[in-house]
Amino acid sequence: MFELGVVYRHINRADRQATDALAPLGSATVHEAMGRVGLMKPYMRPIYAGAQVSGTAVTVLLHPGDNWMMHVVAEQIQAGDVVVAALTAECTDGYFGDLLATSFQARGARALVIDAGVRDVKTLTAMNFPVWSRAISSKGTIKATLGSVNIPVVCAGMAVQPGDAIVADDDGVVVVPRAQVPQTLQAARDREAKEGAKREQLAAGVLGLDMYNMREPLTKAGLRYID
Amino acid sequence: MFELGVVYRHINRADRQATDALAPLGSATVHEAMGRVGLMKPYMRPIYAGAQVSGTAVTVLLHPGDNWMMHVVAEQIQAGDVVVAALTAECTDGYFGDLLATSFQARGARALVIDAGVRDVKTLTAMNFPVWSRAISSKGTIKATLGSVNIPVVCAGMAVQPGDAIVADDDGVVVVPRAQVPQTLQAARDREAKEGAKREQLAAGVLGLDMYNMREPLTKAGLRYID
Amino acid sequence: MFELGVVYRHINRADRQATDALAPLGSATVHEAMGRVGLMKPYMRPIYAGAQVSGTAVTVLLHPGDNWMMHVVAEQIQAGDVVVAALTAECTDGYFGDLLATSFQARGARALVIDAGVRDVKTLTAMNFPVWSRAISSKGTIKATLGSVNIPVVCAGMAVQPGDAIVADDDGVVVVPRAQVPQTLQAARDREAKEGAKREQLAAGVLGLDMYNMREPLTKAGLRYID
Amino acid sequence: MFELGVVYRHINRADRQATDALAPLGSATVHEAMGRVGLMKPYMRPIYAGAQVSGTAVTVLLHPGDNWMMHVVAEQIQAGDVVVAALTAECTDGYFGDLLATSFQARGARALVIDAGVRDVKTLTAMNFPVWSRAISSKGTIKATLGSVNIPVVCAGMAVQPGDAIVADDDGVVVVPRAQVPQTLQAARDREAKEGAKREQLAAGVLGLDMYNMREPLTKAGLRYID
Amino acid sequence: MFELGVVYRHINRADRQATDALAPLGSATVHEAMGRVGLMKPYMRPIYAGAQVSGTAVTVLLHPGDNWMMHVVAEQIQAGDVVVAALTAECTDGYFGDLLATSFQARGARALVIDAGVRDVKTLTAMNFPVWSRAISSKGTIKATLGSVNIPVVCAGMAVQPGDAIVADDDGVVVVPRAQVPQTLQAARDREAKEGAKREQLAAGVLGLDMYNMREPLTKAGLRYID
Amino acid sequence: MFELGVVYRHINRADRQATDALAPLGSATVHEAMGRVGLMKPYMRPIYAGAQVSGTAVTVLLHPGDNWMMHVVAEQIQAGDVVVAALTAECTDGYFGDLLATSFQARGARALVIDAGVRDVKTLTAMNFPVWSRAISSKGTIKATLGSVNIPVVCAGMAVQPGDAIVADDDGVVVVPRAQVPQTLQAARDREAKEGAKREQLAAGVLGLDMYNMREPLTKAGLRYID
Repeated sequence: MFELGVVYRHINRADRQATDALAPLGSATVHEAMGRVGLMKPYMRPIYAGAQVSGTAVTVLLHPGDNWMMHVVAEQIQAGDVVVAALTAECTDGYFGDLLATSFQARGARALVIDAGVRDVKTLTAMNFPVWSRAISSKGTIKATLGSVNIPVVCAGMAVQPGDAIVADDDGVVVVPRAQVPQTLQAARDREAKEGAKREQLAAGVLGLDMYNMREPLTKAGLRYID
Repeated sequence: MFELGVVYRHINRADRQATDALAPLGSATVHEAMGRVGLMKPYMRPIYAGAQVSGTAVTVLLHPGDNWMMHVVAEQIQAGDVVVAALTAECTDGYFGDLLATSFQARGARALVIDAGVRDVKTLTAMNFPVWSRAISSKGTIKATLGSVNIPVVCAGMAVQPGDAIVADDDGVVVVPRAQVPQTLQAARDREAKEGAKREQLAAGVLGLDMYNMREPLTKAGLRYID
Repeated sequence: MFELGVVYRHINRADRQATDALAPLGSATVHEAMGRVGLMKPYMRPIYAGAQVSGTAVTVLLHPGDNWMMHVVAEQIQAGDVVVAALTAECTDGYFGDLLATSFQARGARALVIDAGVRDVKTLTAMNFPVWSRAISSKGTIKATLGSVNIPVVCAGMAVQPGDAIVADDDGVVVVPRAQVPQTLQAARDREAKEGAKREQLAAGVLGLDMYNMREPLTKAGLRYID
Repeated sequence: MFELGVVYRHINRADRQATDALAPLGSATVHEAMGRVGLMKPYMRPIYAGAQVSGTAVTVLLHPGDNWMMHVVAEQIQAGDVVVAALTAECTDGYFGDLLATSFQARGARALVIDAGVRDVKTLTAMNFPVWSRAISSKGTIKATLGSVNIPVVCAGMAVQPGDAIVADDDGVVVVPRAQVPQTLQAARDREAKEGAKREQLAAGVLGLDMYNMREPLTKAGLRYID
Repeated sequence: MFELGVVYRHINRADRQATDALAPLGSATVHEAMGRVGLMKPYMRPIYAGAQVSGTAVTVLLHPGDNWMMHVVAEQIQAGDVVVAALTAECTDGYFGDLLATSFQARGARALVIDAGVRDVKTLTAMNFPVWSRAISSKGTIKATLGSVNIPVVCAGMAVQPGDAIVADDDGVVVVPRAQVPQTLQAARDREAKEGAKREQLAAGVLGLDMYNMREPLTKAGLRYID
Repeated sequence: MFELGVVYRHINRADRQATDALAPLGSATVHEAMGRVGLMKPYMRPIYAGAQVSGTAVTVLLHPGDNWMMHVVAEQIQAGDVVVAALTAECTDGYFGDLLATSFQARGARALVIDAGVRDVKTLTAMNFPVWSRAISSKGTIKATLGSVNIPVVCAGMAVQPGDAIVADDDGVVVVPRAQVPQTLQAARDREAKEGAKREQLAAGVLGLDMYNMREPLTKAGLRYID
């Protein structure tokens, strides 16, 4: 499952244009468009509010307390990538700070998604480099053990293949398998297209009960109103 | 205890004027005024800082992963209400987003208090619709199972009756039983009235030890100073 | 270990100038300078973003649900101190609010670090009085049981002696033993001095792999690149 | 909601015979018979495996770190009661040990259900006095603050009225409102009566898919089999 | 990633003989033999102590609060299988009890590994049907939504393919990818073969420091002994 | 605070006879005798029920995922010691299994107290070697980084000095500072001596309310009985 000590240099990235078009749709719409799957666990939180990105995953598998492979993955970053860092066991240490962020940003990375901790969050915020993580911690790491780069990983409960599309915003992080990016984009756009009209109606006081024709199925299910 | 599949249309709401007057006093002062009870668990956090509201509770009981009843409760909202959503089992799914918020806001709701997750928090923040929740998550829900509306519920460890007053701010969420709203308001105001003078003294360097006459009871309790 | 009911009036504080010079270096750099130790658990979070302080510890040991000793410790505060509050058992109650903050600030305290909850966070933010805590909660406390002031405590997993230096920012809280403050400051400055040049190189696209000469040790450790 | 400092001496207990008959049915069957409600949170665990009890609730509300009211509630115990102890804030201290258990047992209590910690679990096990709790801890408590006895409480997320029936076993703790005990007993017995035949069929290799006629609804819902 | 509403009838199972030979080696030895990977998160605990099994995975993906697919997966069980149940979102409900266990056992299943809750644990223990789960809970589930059977899943943080070997005991649950079962078995046996001699030496008082020749590398790393 | 890379060979152990006499008194009684302090956090649980030990602490500080120092500490064990293992950051890996237990037991260790995970718990149970830990996990560790032996540590929230007495049983783990062992033993014995008579009275139905003369203070505090 987990090959240790390997770096895959060539990965097939999801279609760039389609991947980029996912960001403005947001994680919730994309997740619904996929059939309510693909979401990392909700403990993954952004280090600052408001960032909304999509990109192609380059993956890295790390050991607890050891960030050596973060330097190895940096070399594999291409413009438009999002680094997805998974751990072999739970850890909240600060694997990533402003120096690595400078390097990642210089290589074209759009964000880091890491199932561990980060630090220098004030500087990262000033740099406008978004991170989704399970913790914020000053705890330093060592450089002693090999993990891997661009192998399939499990990050925050979700399987990620190198090249998959990642969509992340204030609501969470969604993984879209590479092959499903085009149809997911289409489904998400369709979904959003319908939302404008709905929002208008709801703002005018129309109830979802009526707009979605729920009254009959609710009655059938046995709902009783008591005055 | 929990009736399933019922909607109570008529509830007795706490006195509007007294309820509205609780917001500026804040959750901490109101909680103290009640005798240090009534507070939901501290995992209930606002989705953005600074909101401070009070209102009358309309309650809804939800099943894990199912937000059908959120549409049912929308119809029961009156201006000045706060929707209090309880769960039959722990769940962090995103039960509520910008469309439901549009509907709730159009019906006059002031806020949502939910023992589960919400999504579209960026839009909710822009809409100025505050939510106190246990999680933020893109995870979508289905519409398949009946819960109930306006029955007594337990939300984040606190029993809530429909019509009770809710006070929520950055410090947490407090439930004031309907019948106790007037005397709680009075007690909270009394409490606050005394705080101004105290704050001035403390700012001038007077110690609480002296202001509250604690030195004698501390000595009696056996406190020893060592030089 | 824990003496109960005692207040040590005279403690030896870490060198003021050296302690003050730690703040701008930040918790991550100071923690690394100490050899990657000294950090409190990452559940300790600031109540607002951006505060960055250092100061000398005055310590207080509290019982669950009882903040009596917070008034006792107030008297022992000197300008430049950071109050470190430890608990005899886990508790998230709101031990500290705007009145105590007014008093602490008047006495010259720079911050509170507390392994429990705080309240009035909106006012504390407006007062610019930073707190690092494990929780935010309106829950009030009583004044019934003696703890101690200026004894050695364990706060959020870290042993703290009165007079130690505390460094706290968005990344966490670090404890520097009094005797180690000067050499820690030197080591932290050395560390930071080197970071500027590194940051420039990384921003120019140089890889950490090359800058830190990691390629050879990685190969020795068995790293394989696959095309 | 929470009256502090009161002891209700007279409560209406659920029907003794019906309450006693619930124990052998177990918490899962009773919970299903109620319509899948009434269950305390699953963090409530028995201190030893195998105990299976039912009884009528006498309730006590405690403050963090203070077990004074445990002695007050002891006097209100009648034979066949289960003491249900709720807390005004989260706490894992050891409120109950072998001395109190001796007293409770002498008064006729069948068990303790407590949303906090217990201690002396080895002795309690030897005494055959079962406890369901959120924690096991040696941490001692003080006797300083008034709570209440036999008021409505929320214990481990579930509202409990004095006199309700409690069913507890290795699977958890269920609360049956007093008025619903007879019909819940009937529904639980009906449910169990059908289980014997089902178990036999399943043991013989019959599938639930066929026994419950699930194949058609699954197909209708869109289930596809792929060879 | 997650196909919903599909059942794969034909999967390639890991070699039966090699899979069966993994059980007596135990999860720790197998995990080490794989290079310290493959372990599910340690919150997965057995419902009773002492069970030690290995088998081939049939997988099922479930929605929160819905156990419909447990009946669907039952039909796909073959003798020697271990059912691995993953969830689309965190849930502790009791998805599995004595009736389903009777069915699973009749179909030849050796165990259930589920990232959710189970119930009827007393009966399951008596039946000698082991379960590794994240929770024990009476909470019932509904049968309303399609998941899938025999698709790749993530269970307790670990990716599992249908047909992989599962090794579970008191120490945890390990997943061995199907193709790696033979060499993992060999490596685990080699590892164990060496342990007997080591155990004897250590029992005789020989230190690991000497047996593993650690003194020199420790000195090189800078270890200092202080008398 | 934390010296890394040092091993103190000579420590002053608490009085052997007094330390040994603490075990039968148990952690709860000893903790009370110390004034309700000294207890590690309640997440520290025994790997099997019924063990009750006391001994002198030899301490070891470990890094996450690295158990190298466990072999170093083995050499420092003397008959009657309890090894107390602290971590520099949170970790649940399995640092200790049957081989190390064989070595520790051969050296005379009575138990291990570790703020991390252990494995081989079935064998450890058969060996009758008790461990108190925060987790059980097969996860293996590496041997790469120096920690220290016999320095002061913080383990599960409690400061431990080498040579302190440790008392551990089913209720938890208590640390008695070396100098306080004799008076703690005396206080604990006094406490226990009184318990026999109390237990008898309580078993005869006498209430704690009367036995401890609580009725008057309760009335003074304002307790009201309502018929």
